Amino acid sequence: MSEISHNVDKKLVLASGRAHPELAEEIAKELGTELLPMGAYDFANGEIYVRSGESVRGKDVFIIQSHPAPLNNWLMEQLIMVDSMKRASARRITVVSPFYPYARQDKKGRGREPISARLIADLYKTAGASRIMSVDLHTAQIQGFFDGPVDHLFAIPLLADYIRGRVGDSPITVVSPDTGRVRVAEQWADRLGGVPLAFVHKSRDLTVPNQAVSKTVVGNIEGRTCVLIDDMIDTGGTIAGAVRVLKEAGAKDVIIAATHGVFSDPAAQRLSECGALEVVVTNTLPIPAAKRFPQLTVLSIAPLIARAIKEVFEDGSVTSLFDGNA
Amino acid sequence: MSEISHNVDKKLVLASGRAHPELAEEIAKELGTELLPMGAYDFANGEIYVRSGESVRGKDVFIIQSHPAPLNNWLMEQLIMVDSMKRASARRITVVSPFYPYARQDKKGRGREPISARLIADLYKTAGASRIMSVDLHTAQIQGFFDGPVDHLFAIPLLADYIRGRVGDSPITVVSPDTGRVRVAEQWADRLGGVPLAFVHKSRDLTVPNQAVSKTVVGNIEGRTCVLIDDMIDTGGTIAGAVRVLKEAGAKDVIIAATHGVFSDPAAQRLSECGALEVVVTNTLPIPAAKRFPQLTVLSIAPLIARAIKEVFEDGSVTSLFDGNA
Amino acid sequence: MSEISHNVDKKLVLASGRAHPELAEEIAKELGTELLPMGAYDFANGEIYVRSGESVRGKDVFIIQSHPAPLNNWLMEQLIMVDSMKRASARRITVVSPFYPYARQDKKGRGREPISARLIADLYKTAGASRIMSVDLHTAQIQGFFDGPVDHLFAIPLLADYIRGRVGDSPITVVSPDTGRVRVAEQWADRLGGVPLAFVHKSRDLTVPNQAVSKTVVGNIEGRTCVLIDDMIDTGGTIAGAVRVLKEAGAKDVIIAATHGVFSDPAAQRLSECGALEVVVTNTLPIPAAKRFPQLTVLSIAPLIARAIKEVFEDGSVTSLFDGNA
Amino acid sequence: MSEISHNVDKKLVLASGRAHPELAEEIAKELGTELLPMGAYDFANGEIYVRSGESVRGKDVFIIQSHPAPLNNWLMEQLIMVDSMKRASARRITVVSPFYPYARQDKKGRGREPISARLIADLYKTAGASRIMSVDLHTAQIQGFFDGPVDHLFAIPLLADYIRGRVGDSPITVVSPDTGRVRVAEQWADRLGGVPLAFVHKSRDLTVPNQAVSKTVVGNIEGRTCVLIDDMIDTGGTIAGAVRVLKEAGAKDVIIAATHGVFSDPAAQRLSECGALEVVVTNTLPIPAAKRFPQLTVLSIAPLIARAIKEVFEDGSVTSLFDGNA
Amino acid sequence: MSEISHNVDKKLVLASGRAHPELAEEIAKELGTELLPMGAYDFANGEIYVRSGESVRGKDVFIIQSHPAPLNNWLMEQLIMVDSMKRASARRITVVSPFYPYARQDKKGRGREPISARLIADLYKTAGASRIMSVDLHTAQIQGFFDGPVDHLFAIPLLADYIRGRVGDSPITVVSPDTGRVRVAEQWADRLGGVPLAFVHKSRDLTVPNQAVSKTVVGNIEGRTCVLIDDMIDTGGTIAGAVRVLKEAGAKDVIIAATHGVFSDPAAQRLSECGALEVVVTNTLPIPAAKRFPQLTVLSIAPLIARAIKEVFEDGSVTSLFDGNA
Amino acid sequence: MSEISHNVDKKLVLASGRAHPELAEEIAKELGTELLPMGAYDFANGEIYVRSGESVRGKDVFIIQSHPAPLNNWLMEQLIMVDSMKRASARRITVVSPFYPYARQDKKGRGREPISARLIADLYKTAGASRIMSVDLHTAQIQGFFDGPVDHLFAIPLLADYIRGRVGDSPITVVSPDTGRVRVAEQWADRLGGVPLAFVHKSRDLTVPNQAVSKTVVGNIEGRTCVLIDDMIDTGGTIAGAVRVLKEAGAKDVIIAATHGVFSDPAAQRLSECGALEVVVTNTLPIPAAKRFPQLTVLSIAPLIARAIKEVFEDGSVTSLFDGNA
Repeated sequence: MSEISHNVDKKLVLASGRAHPELAEEIAKELGTELLPMGAYDFANGEIYVRSGESVRGKDVFIIQSHPAPLNNWLMEQLIMVDSMKRASARRITVVSPFYPYARQDKKGRGREPISARLIADLYKTAGASRIMSVDLHTAQIQGFFDGPVDHLFAIPLLADYIRGRVGDSPITVVSPDTGRVRVAEQWADRLGGVPLAFVHKSRDLTVPNQAVSKTVVGNIEGRTCVLIDDMIDTGGTIAGAVRVLKEAGAKDVIIAATHGVFSDPAAQRLSECGALEVVVTNTLPIPAAKRFPQLTVLSIAPLIARAIKEVFEDGSVTSLFDGNA
Repeated sequence: MSEISHNVDKKLVLASGRAHPELAEEIAKELGTELLPMGAYDFANGEIYVRSGESVRGKDVFIIQSHPAPLNNWLMEQLIMVDSMKRASARRITVVSPFYPYARQDKKGRGREPISARLIADLYKTAGASRIMSVDLHTAQIQGFFDGPVDHLFAIPLLADYIRGRVGDSPITVVSPDTGRVRVAEQWADRLGGVPLAFVHKSRDLTVPNQAVSKTVVGNIEGRTCVLIDDMIDTGGTIAGAVRVLKEAGAKDVIIAATHGVFSDPAAQRLSECGALEVVVTNTLPIPAAKRFPQLTVLSIAPLIARAIKEVFEDGSVTSLFDGNA
Repeated sequence: MSEISHNVDKKLVLASGRAHPELAEEIAKELGTELLPMGAYDFANGEIYVRSGESVRGKDVFIIQSHPAPLNNWLMEQLIMVDSMKRASARRITVVSPFYPYARQDKKGRGREPISARLIADLYKTAGASRIMSVDLHTAQIQGFFDGPVDHLFAIPLLADYIRGRVGDSPITVVSPDTGRVRVAEQWADRLGGVPLAFVHKSRDLTVPNQAVSKTVVGNIEGRTCVLIDDMIDTGGTIAGAVRVLKEAGAKDVIIAATHGVFSDPAAQRLSECGALEVVVTNTLPIPAAKRFPQLTVLSIAPLIARAIKEVFEDGSVTSLFDGNA
Repeated sequence: MSEISHNVDKKLVLASGRAHPELAEEIAKELGTELLPMGAYDFANGEIYVRSGESVRGKDVFIIQSHPAPLNNWLMEQLIMVDSMKRASARRITVVSPFYPYARQDKKGRGREPISARLIADLYKTAGASRIMSVDLHTAQIQGFFDGPVDHLFAIPLLADYIRGRVGDSPITVVSPDTGRVRVAEQWADRLGGVPLAFVHKSRDLTVPNQAVSKTVVGNIEGRTCVLIDDMIDTGGTIAGAVRVLKEAGAKDVIIAATHGVFSDPAAQRLSECGALEVVVTNTLPIPAAKRFPQLTVLSIAPLIARAIKEVFEDGSVTSLFDGNA
Repeated sequence: MSEISHNVDKKLVLASGRAHPELAEEIAKELGTELLPMGAYDFANGEIYVRSGESVRGKDVFIIQSHPAPLNNWLMEQLIMVDSMKRASARRITVVSPFYPYARQDKKGRGREPISARLIADLYKTAGASRIMSVDLHTAQIQGFFDGPVDHLFAIPLLADYIRGRVGDSPITVVSPDTGRVRVAEQWADRLGGVPLAFVHKSRDLTVPNQAVSKTVVGNIEGRTCVLIDDMIDTGGTIAGAVRVLKEAGAKDVIIAATHGVFSDPAAQRLSECGALEVVVTNTLPIPAAKRFPQLTVLSIAPLIARAIKEVFEDGSVTSLFDGNA
Repeated sequence: MSEISHNVDKKLVLASGRAHPELAEEIAKELGTELLPMGAYDFANGEIYVRSGESVRGKDVFIIQSHPAPLNNWLMEQLIMVDSMKRASARRITVVSPFYPYARQDKKGRGREPISARLIADLYKTAGASRIMSVDLHTAQIQGFFDGPVDHLFAIPLLADYIRGRVGDSPITVVSPDTGRVRVAEQWADRLGGVPLAFVHKSRDLTVPNQAVSKTVVGNIEGRTCVLIDDMIDTGGTIAGAVRVLKEAGAKDVIIAATHGVFSDPAAQRLSECGALEVVVTNTLPIPAAKRFPQLTVLSIAPLIARAIKEVFEDGSVTSLFDGNA
């Protein structure tokens, strides 16, 4: 007999980078397991070293990394982790990046710009990842940047259900802070029960040099509770400005909802002082105490990611998590 | 002496598929050249055969193909042309696809959908194309689907300048027919001199089964000339419906402007009967006599494509064609 | 413990394009299963949309598509199906194309021709297929066009055994309709018990311009039953002409046998009127009622494909299906 | 000014492996140049070392290697040469392999066979070649094994014109030694002026075990001069056997013509004793004195290869060398 | 139900090339299995044919080949075996090459040299291998030449433990025969219990033309047993010269230890006459009787390779075989 | 006429990242040109944006970036620059990375380690670079990590000539700080005129747990000027320790020479206090005032890089810059 048989059993392993270990631990807990012990440190000149403390041979490895500042550091750490797992004979490697790096640079707005979001997809592939899992991509087209499966998770149900509970029966308008998010605002409006839509319009006359930009609200918001939505809040300038425009235009209340709380300075200050009733985000990115403020509510994305990992590992359906909307 | 020298001179060659030869001929004429003589025919079972009538060895070949119905046929013809040029030692192959095929399927709207627009980019690459040139992609992110340079041309200046001339000084509002085009409508509004924006909102309450969809206009259009814009008009259902909603909401006039006139049946009928003052498109797709109607104006895209090909061939700047906006 | 285990069970899924659903259903029935529910439709401009109705995550998917006219349409549908399955996390994707598209364009007969059959293999690979299954490739070298396993099935045993039964003990000569099929005719001759060979020769004197082509039979056919073989019959011109040449040269009877009944017009008329006793093909391509004629016999290829799929899925041996000849 | 200009001049460089330097030198002489000085030697364990004696940076390099026994050695030498030229910044690398290695293994004749001819194409590509030039491939489909341009040269005109001159006006039949070469024999027959065709048929009844194989001539050869053709002659067994069958069947004379004279032992003995009037081959492979015999004529392929290299380098047309037949 | 289930069981298969079947058989025996029956032979011109005698569909195949002279032959055989297994649907292919071919050409020592060791890694990948297993690579960086897992096994423990037993308590110095192996000598020194190091220095004054090279020992070896180490011994010139230098410099005894006994002529003579007490190698390469000599000891590497294959197959840990040093 | 001609002129463009603009400017000055104007800034969360201020279409672009801390940032900036140039149609992109990032992680020292230096090569390739230029790679094998040309420049001549001038005729020994650099020390010794070699040996007995490590000098250094060499100095711990060991062992003077002055804290302090007479490095990395100290000499690498870029651009010979040693 010229062959030897061996029983096959799939093994799931969760590994975490150092950017946001709390989230990874929460996901592991949801799944009833523990994180892979990883050795990771920085050389004095910034080079990163990683090494798994256990064999990952033949394992189905999920490499969880969050991407707050210094983002390039955490990205390289994740790529090096992928390389080490590939060379250590992992069976399959999925990068779990709840906040997709460089998602905003997803097209050439002007000639000679990079398309960094595509570059990121290629870097993941090159390092050895065969799958990506992410939450609320800046644009859904980013899925197409990767040559392989992308599990695109949606935080809108989580956020919308929370806000529905908060607002109760008072009349709502969903507001996009600019023209680029109106389509997403529409998804919110549908989820909240077919409520009205509005957006803030920055008008600019390109035919007149040095003309001032004026902001107006397009849509009906007077006397209504505005749910001002976005995928991410970085320094908070645009969103805080939008709150002011809405208030001036007669909005009763403004609640801000976003998936990714990047919160670069001076976001915390701006958001706490802009007049919004509440600011709701998820923990796809770590939000340290220094960036928190009284109106802030942080919902955990860990249960959703844990369920998605479970479906992926067990060959179930991620689509099913969103009622046919994944 | 162990080497032989030879002078280098770049040669540009224009080849055309059979979908829309008039456009290719117009481009060639603009460039002061002629199309490469191509032998092309169909086998009885639909298989396509192509062969260049002249050597293309070392040439900089641009393969122009338009993609009306039967679109898959014209796509395969173009891919086979690329393969034949690659194997015939063309130095560089650029596919010129003014209307990018399958651009609408640019993301997974639901789980298990294909991302056909990415597939198309990969098919071009696999066949041997090293560059793509296209006009007004459905979403700008499609540029990132190709691993190489994409020359993305804009018809908005051409269309907007024409409309500006037609409308004169009467007050304009730029209208997006749905929430997905508001960002593009904003670019129109800027180009037309900082005019107001509006969009048509189809509201749907997902929490209530079988609820009717209602359409409302968000934004100020009363007594104004509405420029209803889109990237393409297929069967014309959405756009004709939007004209009606705008009229009912008090619009003075409606002018429809779109880059790509797909005009599948019954578009011609719908558009001519919907009440629009004028329908303006370009000839990125052929528009046969049977699909034309009194209110239709077709602007030629050939001069723009010809200028872009010239810049690409001569290592100039395509960006410069759009005042820093490419 | 930092890992989770899960039992592994392979799952086979059969998906079918819309070109020839009867064949796919017959294969499914042979395997005791049902086809994957697929949503598929055409946009007005010919763009195709597909989406699986069930999760295919982790499944071993076989995508069955036949390629009659409009062949490019069915090819694109199959490629888009592959893309959608890849992005939906299928474990392995095999394209089952009983009649390999563009098989005739398998070399550069003249300079600057494409090699479309290689292009097809690359397109399948690019879309995401890791394996191909096909029946009686136009030339066996096409297997080498694909960078991966190709399961090449042979219909000759099926056809030859049927004809053996029909002809009984009367003397047979196997005839190739041109010089390119003599090697295949030899395989038939061996299978039929070492019978004689002949071929039809179109002679042409390239040194004399405008010389007429004359057809002669090379080999002994007088008073014998000729089995005129080919891999495919398209418009039937060559094959019907060969029947006439054979009859004139003294053949007793002519039976035509081919794997693929393309039957483009006016094949049905030509074949029914050419004087052949019987025309035997398989159903690798759909043969609608309008293309059928009294002398036609269609044998089903479904049992062979079903057995091959079973061997592939269960890691058995496809070679074994052909007595060491696969 | 932020750029520096430099004039561009293409430089052609010819490099030769050690298998058949005479051919490479003859080609260089035809082109009026000299071979690149190469350092090449073998380590004691068979590892090969190569290094160019001059810079090849930016050059258009043609790496000429012939593939007699020990074929694997010469193949590896060529691959290592390609690697060294790639890393030394050659602008373009063309492998010139007059006798394509492993061309006979171009398909899976039985299950589990390799397709070595495809593997060779992939190895060339991997090492860094962007083009292949070869003479009379065993099957034309091998062109499709390479993902790039293949310049396929034909020796038939050279051989046929020589034979035409030798035979004069005596009646000729072109004979294929088996069923696999009948198509090529037809090309010969056309080239020789529309002369008749024949082939040798080895019949075998697969349904009867251990049955003897019998050889018969199919076609008219009686009293005629037979031109027995093949692409290569290895040990000469088949071809010498065919001569005998033809003589017994009444052939007046037999002239053997083949492109590639592999001449493995005991080919020289067999061919000189088989009764053929003359054996004509080209020097795509070296034919040392020990393998030569009185009836042998060797025509030089160097002028043809030199002309093709010139066309490739100067972006001319290789197709034109064969009157539209390349 | 639209899917069929099938139990999964991994199957390991060992296949061997013809270079060193004894080693492969020994490995198979250690694993309690038999080698896959392979048909393999050479065509007269050196082309190699291989074909597995059994189905390998879905199997985890390890292709064991040793690389003595004629090395290029055995390499091509292994590549063709990989190609055939890939096309025969093996699930995973690991090449086991105990002596990595062309390992010495691992960098460009001078401009225009190839990096053949990288080329080899790419050829394995191209043919279809997804993993490499090797013993004592010439430099550890070669692992990085392969885009995938490399199982790098170490023979130092095997050799060092044997030598420790032979030498007993007499004082040892580990000696590198040149400056390039000092790092490896240090690993030996550590393994042998922190013993001293030395190396042989060939000094050369590049600023003085034609200056003689002089060899000196750097380090303390007087009256000590020198363990002269290297990764491979080819013709034995350097190593035998080093023995002489050591003896002259006062070494008590010299024991030579190397992993790979290439032993090209006149290695056996040189080594037996150079004054070394013992020469210890492993059987990564076959050592025929003609190359053996009285002072030679050959240790078997088979148990180590067998254990590593088992760990790879069963998703265990190869690292664990070397106490955290793999 | 169906083609248009255009004269070809190569254009060189130098672009610089923001890590070490002084070096790039110095290189530009040497070449008599200016740097490409680049727009580059950081988003608040660390994402980098870059855009060329001029067209680079058809240009030969060299992207110069140095890699001090924060190294991952500068690496990502360089990758994004490459992506933007690729998409802007640069003809060829060379990354100039004088200090190759992650060069130390060039092998798996232990199981499950990454090979980050290979990953870096792949990331450059993926982003779009077709060539790499670097100075004194940590190991020469890194050249083999890139699938394309690597121009490997050597600073040893620059450094050695400087030191030769400083030391005059006093007796020199070249010392490697550990066993891994002895081979490089030998190159120094040859360059300095065949001077003696020594190295520092950290002995460790792996068979005894917790044993102390002892450092000894192997080789003759007593009363001699030691040139202690390394490729890079990071925190300076090893090198400063080596100075002390050398002094204790009787060295007259110690001069430290290294190509890359990484100088992470507390390198400046350690080096200035360790007793070395002089510390000589090049400016492959920026050395800000705060890291400078009295004994430090910084030689400029810019002239060497400028000459190499010129040779690459003009298709000259980089090898020639090092007397046949590149």
